[in-house]
Amino acid sequence: MTDYAAGAAYMDGAYMPVAECRIPVLDWGFLRSDATYDVAHTWQGRFFRLDEHLDRFERNIARLRYSIPYDRDAIEEILHGCVARADLQDAFVEMLVTRGIPQGRDPRTATNRFAVFAVPFVWILRPERHDDDGLNVIISSIERIRAQAVDPTVKNYHWLDLVRGLFEAYERGGETAVLIDSRGNVLEGPGFNLFVIRDGVAATPAAGVLEGVTRQTAIELLERRGVRLELRDVHADELRGADEAVATSTAGGVMPIASVDGRRLPGGEIGPRLLADYWAAHADDVWATPVRYTQPAGAR
Amino acid sequence: MTDYAAGAAYMDGAYMPVAECRIPVLDWGFLRSDATYDVAHTWQGRFFRLDEHLDRFERNIARLRYSIPYDRDAIEEILHGCVARADLQDAFVEMLVTRGIPQGRDPRTATNRFAVFAVPFVWILRPERHDDDGLNVIISSIERIRAQAVDPTVKNYHWLDLVRGLFEAYERGGETAVLIDSRGNVLEGPGFNLFVIRDGVAATPAAGVLEGVTRQTAIELLERRGVRLELRDVHADELRGADEAVATSTAGGVMPIASVDGRRLPGGEIGPRLLADYWAAHADDVWATPVRYTQPAGAR
Repeated sequence: MTDYAAGAAYMDGAYMPVAECRIPVLDWGFLRSDATYDVAHTWQGRFFRLDEHLDRFERNIARLRYSIPYDRDAIEEILHGCVARADLQDAFVEMLVTRGIPQGRDPRTATNRFAVFAVPFVWILRPERHDDDGLNVIISSIERIRAQAVDPTVKNYHWLDLVRGLFEAYERGGETAVLIDSRGNVLEGPGFNLFVIRDGVAATPAAGVLEGVTRQTAIELLERRGVRLELRDVHADELRGADEAVATSTAGGVMPIASVDGRRLPGGEIGPRLLADYWAAHADDVWATPVRYTQPAGAR
Repeated sequence: MTDYAAGAAYMDGAYMPVAECRIPVLDWGFLRSDATYDVAHTWQGRFFRLDEHLDRFERNIARLRYSIPYDRDAIEEILHGCVARADLQDAFVEMLVTRGIPQGRDPRTATNRFAVFAVPFVWILRPERHDDDGLNVIISSIERIRAQAVDPTVKNYHWLDLVRGLFEAYERGGETAVLIDSRGNVLEGPGFNLFVIRDGVAATPAAGVLEGVTRQTAIELLERRGVRLELRDVHADELRGADEAVATSTAGGVMPIASVDGRRLPGGEIGPRLLADYWAAHADDVWATPVRYTQPAGAR
């Protein structure tokens, strides 16, 4: 029996344990970070908003001019196949396409590579820290890569700015960072979008960020509750002076922010309610796709 | 016999054919492009300015807070080992460090990974096109990633802006692109620095670019010839209106630029002389390190 306990992957036509899934060093997905990806999750055996992730993934494949010999049904089958092999109820499921290895230096000559891996669910903030605690963030001095260079709505692996932000956070006593733009507005952190709440009004950066599926879910859930929400520039001082703030990510869902630059946020009702609504939404059949744990005979 | 014809690599303590050198998909070097690298070359069996590449590589490892269990002698031995196994006279030799696989999402917990590969020499512009021709470049509308986000002097794989530039070049009838900053100055292209020459004076961007070893060599060779050189902002209109321009890269050395945005540059004497000086400099023993083709018995 193949050991899928640490996770299952699919690449180049075959399933394998995630530890055996390796990208050729000459693939531009590594040498140029010339790749796009998406991350869905399963919770209690069901994918959450899988169609939104697949829509975005297919759109980004086209925008970066990749082409893969897998249609949407085939991609979806492989996502199920990885979760089923890893036998996970709560999974972090990443699908990706790399440029591949061109002849010479012309990316048009490369055969693009498609891969998927499913591993146990990832938490940016562990749930035992949700109730009386939250993320301790610092507002970094580092700018997020600008959309004029790399479009943040095309989900990509250009994270050195975010990793620098993490190290800055550790030095300043935080655990994660929010990066800024050139005018001092906050944008996003390593893997999460940001919502700032003050006097009952929520705001989230309108541009320069990944349009996360969890961000979109939070927008819809706030609207359902009748919370006023503004998509606009959000200055760093607004985060520092917020009543409440939350981070949103597939890797952990809606996560309260406890402190900003060492100052504890006063807190309020909107964040905790959004967190509860987010997990309650996982019971909504409209947003759920049951994992096909029993794979058809002869499945690739 | 192991077949090293396509190139030789070293990773995780062992030599292997380059096609077998693969990065684990979970390594942040892939998932976060959290890596640095350097590229040296050998020409006629000798490394060119190897010390400069090693100085920069070691400095960048420290700046990104990586730590590897290889001192400078060990790194150098592995560079020689890869070139010797691939039995190459003219080689492109890339050394790299990745973050590795952290526990959870804290990069400080990862064991960093070191790898090297040597492949046949890479030409951005083939030498048969040096004499009466040159690169046909377009000035892209895309900005290079800013130093406020990712420091370009720390050599890195964040190339999606440059790859977008390549596709823009193909659409506009060029073969490569020069990216700009937010004020319309030219910065660098996919793997090369840029020198613009007008009325006998050369200029190259002072900041916002990789401080390439070939760029530094060109600076020194121009000084030796008594050519006035300015390190400063270089506006795109200066490239469009240049008498001559050259690209510099380890992957091809000094390369003439034939046209900019479809307009042929008039040409001159400084570029061709610099190209000749660059290859002549490879005979200088001060800058050359003979490859140790005979490896010691028991070499790793």
